[in-house]
Parts: sequence; C-alpha cells; structure tokens
Amino acid sequence: MNQLKVAIAGLGVVGTGVFKELVEHADLLKARTGKAIEVVALSDREADKDRGVDMSACAWYDDARVMAEQADYDVLVETIGGSSGVALDCVKKALSKACHVVTANKAMLAHHGHELATLAEKNNVCLGYEPAVAGGIPIIKAMTDGFTGNKINLVRGILNGTSNYILTTMREEGRPFADVLADAQRLGYAEADPTFDVEGVDAAHKLALLTSLAFGTKVNFDAIEMEGISHISVIDQQAATELGYSIKLLGVARHLGESISQSMGPALIAQSDMLSTVEGVFNAVHILGDYVGDSVLVGRGAGEKPTASAVVGDICDIAKGQIKPMFGIPAKDLIEMPVHPVANHQGEYYMRLRVVDGAVAKVTEHLEQQDITVNTTWHHPAEKGTTWFVVLIGDTVQGQINDVCLTLSALNGVVDNPYVMRIEKV
Amino acid sequence: MNQLKVAIAGLGVVGTGVFKELVEHADLLKARTGKAIEVVALSDREADKDRGVDMSACAWYDDARVMAEQADYDVLVETIGGSSGVALDCVKKALSKACHVVTANKAMLAHHGHELATLAEKNNVCLGYEPAVAGGIPIIKAMTDGFTGNKINLVRGILNGTSNYILTTMREEGRPFADVLADAQRLGYAEADPTFDVEGVDAAHKLALLTSLAFGTKVNFDAIEMEGISHISVIDQQAATELGYSIKLLGVARHLGESISQSMGPALIAQSDMLSTVEGVFNAVHILGDYVGDSVLVGRGAGEKPTASAVVGDICDIAKGQIKPMFGIPAKDLIEMPVHPVANHQGEYYMRLRVVDGAVAKVTEHLEQQDITVNTTWHHPAEKGTTWFVVLIGDTVQGQINDVCLTLSALNGVVDNPYVMRIEKV
Repeated sequence: MNQLKVAIAGLGVVGTGVFKELVEHADLLKARTGKAIEVVALSDREADKDRGVDMSACAWYDDARVMAEQADYDVLVETIGGSSGVALDCVKKALSKACHVVTANKAMLAHHGHELATLAEKNNVCLGYEPAVAGGIPIIKAMTDGFTGNKINLVRGILNGTSNYILTTMREEGRPFADVLADAQRLGYAEADPTFDVEGVDAAHKLALLTSLAFGTKVNFDAIEMEGISHISVIDQQAATELGYSIKLLGVARHLGESISQSMGPALIAQSDMLSTVEGVFNAVHILGDYVGDSVLVGRGAGEKPTASAVVGDICDIAKGQIKPMFGIPAKDLIEMPVHPVANHQGEYYMRLRVVDGAVAKVTEHLEQQDITVNTTWHHPAEKGTTWFVVLIGDTVQGQINDVCLTLSALNGVVDNPYVMRIEKV
Repeated sequence: MNQLKVAIAGLGVVGTGVFKELVEHADLLKARTGKAIEVVALSDREADKDRGVDMSACAWYDDARVMAEQADYDVLVETIGGSSGVALDCVKKALSKACHVVTANKAMLAHHGHELATLAEKNNVCLGYEPAVAGGIPIIKAMTDGFTGNKINLVRGILNGTSNYILTTMREEGRPFADVLADAQRLGYAEADPTFDVEGVDAAHKLALLTSLAFGTKVNFDAIEMEGISHISVIDQQAATELGYSIKLLGVARHLGESISQSMGPALIAQSDMLSTVEGVFNAVHILGDYVGDSVLVGRGAGEKPTASAVVGDICDIAKGQIKPMFGIPAKDLIEMPVHPVANHQGEYYMRLRVVDGAVAKVTEHLEQQDITVNTTWHHPAEKGTTWFVVLIGDTVQGQINDVCLTLSALNGVVDNPYVMRIEKV
C-alpha cells in the first residue's frame, strides 16, 4: 500500500504539467506523503504529439472512457474539459469503481457537482477540485480545512486571469477592449473563442463552487447574475482611475440570512481594496468569516504549472488519506436557499452616459427627480459636440437603477444609452 | 468515538476566544467534522475573572500541569505562552500521553519545535500550530497540503501586526516611531514591553517555523539575522514613499542551494510589490514555489477571533483524522543546512545619512571610490545647516556596505552615522 497509482485523462497543457511534476518531484512527494505516486496510465486523442517528456512507461489509451473503465489506478486525474461528454463519463466511471478523482473541470462541477459529490461519498472516495477554482491558489483547502470554524458570509473573487489581464492592460495602456483582446489571443492568453472568459462564464463556474463551499448550499450556477467585460471602454477605465477605483470582473456571493446572492460582472472597487492590486493574470479570493475576519489569497489562476501544482496537491491529500466531502459537509446535508432577486440588490453604482454638450444638467435633474442620490460626477469631452458624463450613484436598489436607465435613454440630449456597473464595497 | 474532548490551558484573550467559538459554532463544527467537539477542562491562574461566557460545565484546574496530567481529553489547546516553563511542560505531558496539541506559542516552537515534533510523531498524534504563525491566515495548511507538490525556494512575510501597524501609521500620519508606539500601547495594539514585537523577535519566531516547513530543515531560530524597526524615522518613510517604496518589517527565508539565509528586519519593497499593500495590523506570507509560482496569503495576524479561528481549524483537522507531521515530513528526516553568512548577502540597499550642507558630493565621491554603485539620491533639509541625504545603492555584498558605513562615519561632514536597510526584490 505504499504506492498510489495515477491515471491522467487528457494530456493538454495541464495534464502534461501534472505528469511532469509527478516525475520531477517523485522523491519530494514520497517524503511528504509517505507514498510512491506513480503515473500508470494516460489517455489523449493525440497519441503521437511530442510533449517534451518520456511517457513510454505508462499504459496508453486512445479512449479515456476505456482507460477509466479498464486501467488499474487509484486516482483519476481528469483534464479533458467540457461540462459533460467524455469528461463526465470518465469521472462517473472512476468514482463508481471507488477510485478517487482530481479534476480541473469547473464547467462540469458547476453543472454536475452535487451529483458527483454524492457519488464520491457513496463510494467513500475523494473528488478533489482545487485546480478547478483559481488555479494554484489553495482556496478550497483554505475553506474546508483552514476556515472550518467560521460562518462565512461573503466570498469575493477575481477568478478569470484572461479578463483580469485584459482589464489591467486596457487601463495601463489606455487601449480599447477589442484591441487588447486581439493581442491576448495572439499571445495565447485568450482562446480563439473568448466567450467563456470575457463574458464571465468561466469565472461564474468557479464562483458557483465557492458559494456552495462557503454556505453549505447545493451548487446553483443558474442563479448567478452574469455580465461580461466587453462593454467597458477606455473612458470607463479613465473615469474609474481618476475617481479612486479599479474595474475588475468580480464574483460576489453573499449570505443574506434568508437568501443568497451570486453575481459575476464588472464592478468598481476602491483602490485601497486589497483586490484592486491583483493585476494581470493573477487571481484572488477574499473571504469574510465571522472569526477570521478578512482573508485574501492571491496567486496564478491558470497555466500549466500553477494548475498542475493544485492537481498534485489534491493527489497528495489522497496519498495522505485525507478524504473529505467535496463541499465540506456531506452532500445530502447541502441545502437549497432562495435566490436573492437581482432587482433587490442594494448598493452604489457607476453610470456612464454620452450626452450632447450642455445636457448634463438635464440628466442630473432627471436623476434627482427620480430620488437618485448623485455622489460624484465626472466629465470628459467626447466627439462631435458631446460629453462623456459619469455619475457615481449612492445607495439605491438595482430595480430603480434599471428603471432610470430606461427613462434616461429616452431623454432628449442623451446620445448613448447609460452603461451601469456596480460599485462593490466590502 | 463521535466526540472530541478539548482541554484549554490558558484563558487569556485567545483561549477564551477558542472556548467561545467552539460553543457558538458547535453545530457547524459537528456538520463539518462529523464529531461533537466539547470543551471538558479549563485552566488559568485567574479562576474568578469574568470572561463573558458560562464556563461552569467544564472541570477547572488552577494548575495547567495538573490538568495536562490528569484531565480526560483528546486535544490540549495551549495558549499560555512563553518559550518554556508551564507551557512546555503541559505540551510535553499531553503529547507523551498520546493526546493531540494545538498551540499558538511560536516562541516555544521556535526553540523546541524539533523536540516536540519528534515527541508528537512518536506518539502518533498531531501538534497543530496554525495559530502560532500569522494568526488567522491558513499558511501552515497551505504549505503542508496546498503547495505539497512544490519545491519552495523563497518565503517572505509580514509577520507582526504591531510593527506593521506602527510603520503604516508613521507613514500615513508623518509621526515618529516613539509617538506612534505610545499610542499603540494606549490602544492595546502593543504590549507594555514592546521588545518582542518591535525588535522583530516575535516575527522571527514565526519565520523560523516557516523556513523549516518550506525547506525541510530543522528549526534554526538562532541563525536568523534580526533587526527591529525603532531606528526608522519620519524622513525614512518620506524618502521611501517618494522613491516608490514601502518600508516593512520583512522576514525573508531563501534556499540558496548549498545554504539557507533567514533575515528579519526593516526593508524597502517596491510599491508594486503585493506585500506593500498589506497595511495596519494585517499579516501576509508570500511563497514562491517552482510550480505554483507566486502566491500570497493575507489576513489578520493576531487578536482573539482570528487566532481562535486558526486554533479551531486545527482542532477540526484532528477531528477529521488529518494527522500529519508538524513540518510536512517526519521530524527525523529534517536536515541541517549551512547558514548563509550575513556578510555575503547580495542585494540593493537604502542608506540614510545626515551631512553638513555642501558635503553631499563628498559622500557620493567616497562611495564611488569604494566601488559602490549609487542608483538614486534624495535630499531633504535637516536642522542647523544639515541635510538628510538618502542613497539607493545598487547590487552589493553586505560586508562591503558594512565597511563603507564605518569609513563614512569617520568622514568629515557626516553628522549622523549611516542607517542602512535592505531593498528586498523578489
């Protein structure tokens, strides 16, 4: 029993990184876990690709499902991806035959997490998913083992490195979204189809898992209010910076006592907020616990080595016999909580409009007539006799903001429809 | 076996916080660990003090040693403090009778860590010390369980909240050290005898433990080069800020291949360094792993509730049966490594002198004659015809800097001896 046999399904960037790390650090891992962790089986659609490392000692399977079914392993590492299909089949197969699983697949877990957690517990095995949330940051372990004694009321996170890189670069270089995205694609920081990254879907998958872990609730990805970063302009970046804020694609989950709110979207945070210094491809998670207070974990959220680090950390947990329920408590005890209606969200807002020169007073007057508190305004010349007009709005219910946006759009002198972001305070 | 019995030795701020948390969150902890965690025995010198919570159901011992010896418990929580004496006696007693221990006592572990780790392992029990390092931040678990697959080459940390509060306040309010310290003492942020906090001793205790954990070496507190913050002036804060740096009491441990360096002292870090935004009473630890890359954990480093959170996290690990060696590998496998001589430290430096007006060129000339690279200079008028003169020095060996300080002190026109801090780059 001093050996732990690993099968890796999917030899893309992460799967290959896991293989390399397990080989390179075999002695270190044996010292730290007491077990020889050995890769015994591999699977990928591309058998002949040069991965820069000798994999010839492992059994090879062209079909991951066949490997999951037939190979002799203790832990299946799933790095295929996709919310269902082959990945889901392999994971179910492994858990059903009482093998442990470690997966980097947030999409799968956001959609099937509860079912898989139940299956893992039924078979008394571990479903590790540290690599699925915030890459190398050990946030899952921090929540299951570190903050165990806390009632957690708030989780906030910068959970997508591609979006954070784009936003950081837009601000630093004063360049528009489309331009920076194209660069990121050329550099390999963004996918050819960037939708999952820039529209908040990938980050929302991760938020859904953190929410369950924090509040002991069933994963509810569909309840997440989601918005991407493609509407953010250079003017927004400039206004936010000058007004003392940073713009981040921010996930926020709050336990409101009787309901839970989960949102993923662009938001302004104060420059003194610890998350505002998290730049480029870095991710960060902020937890507010009733005993620990504020705690922030920062690290690389993606990439071969950081994600492999998280996979191997989970494999080591298994090697040490640290088997625990996926969401910190048995899956059967996870509860369903009402979703806090988006329209009831209470907070401050950033609103950007383009108005014809001289129409600024009319907009302000209209807002005052609707009982909207204007805290700060910011002006900047725009093209053809128009002005960018930014308003920071005091504590208001989101439903009212939505209504005001509609009436403002119809107002004479308002050229571009209002664009609104939340100002997220802790 | 569905109960875990806890005895608490020392009912000061932290011990009382642990009691309150275990009572307040009894249901939550049972859900998360599967065990009823119950406090069965308590000990403190002050039996009659009102601690704001009903402790009457627990057996009371005036003498912690007697409790450790005679009470029927599974886990002893040691929050007495002190590097030896009662605390050490109690911990040894508990471990010897195969009871687990959780301790917040960094001084004791920095001096007796290896002996206690050996004793715990011999008895197959856990010696939890998450609360001893960086309060509520789950850095020990991150290193033992999260970054398990990494070779770690660098640990940096802001590990003393009192010092960080003083430095932050000095900078923000432009007030001298002694003044801010006196305020901190009035507010209860600093002890009546602040030596351990402001001279770096407390932070060095923590660094010694992180070093062992990171590099697999025996605790070597005596090898830490240590300096406090009491010589830092308002001028230093102003110069550092204007030159783009923050001053922090920074612990740094580096694995240099053939030797290990550990230092604890005031240092300049770039304002873009993630640690520079860690202000006030917050602590932070930065780890550089070969796979995970840079990872930073931030949180409250002291206080009743954050420290209690860490104690309870460790108790929960024990309840879940997650028993692991104190320093990540068996104590017998911890090695001794040569200490990197301080004089061989290579890096950049900040040097502040006071010179008579007009003597600045002479100082610069002297530095150039000694082959010291001057990167940047900064001047500020001082009293009675003198000038504050700050020099940022390029890559140099510390021994050479020490020599230059001696010759500079003897130089005509130099009023105050040079004060030197390291510039710590990652």
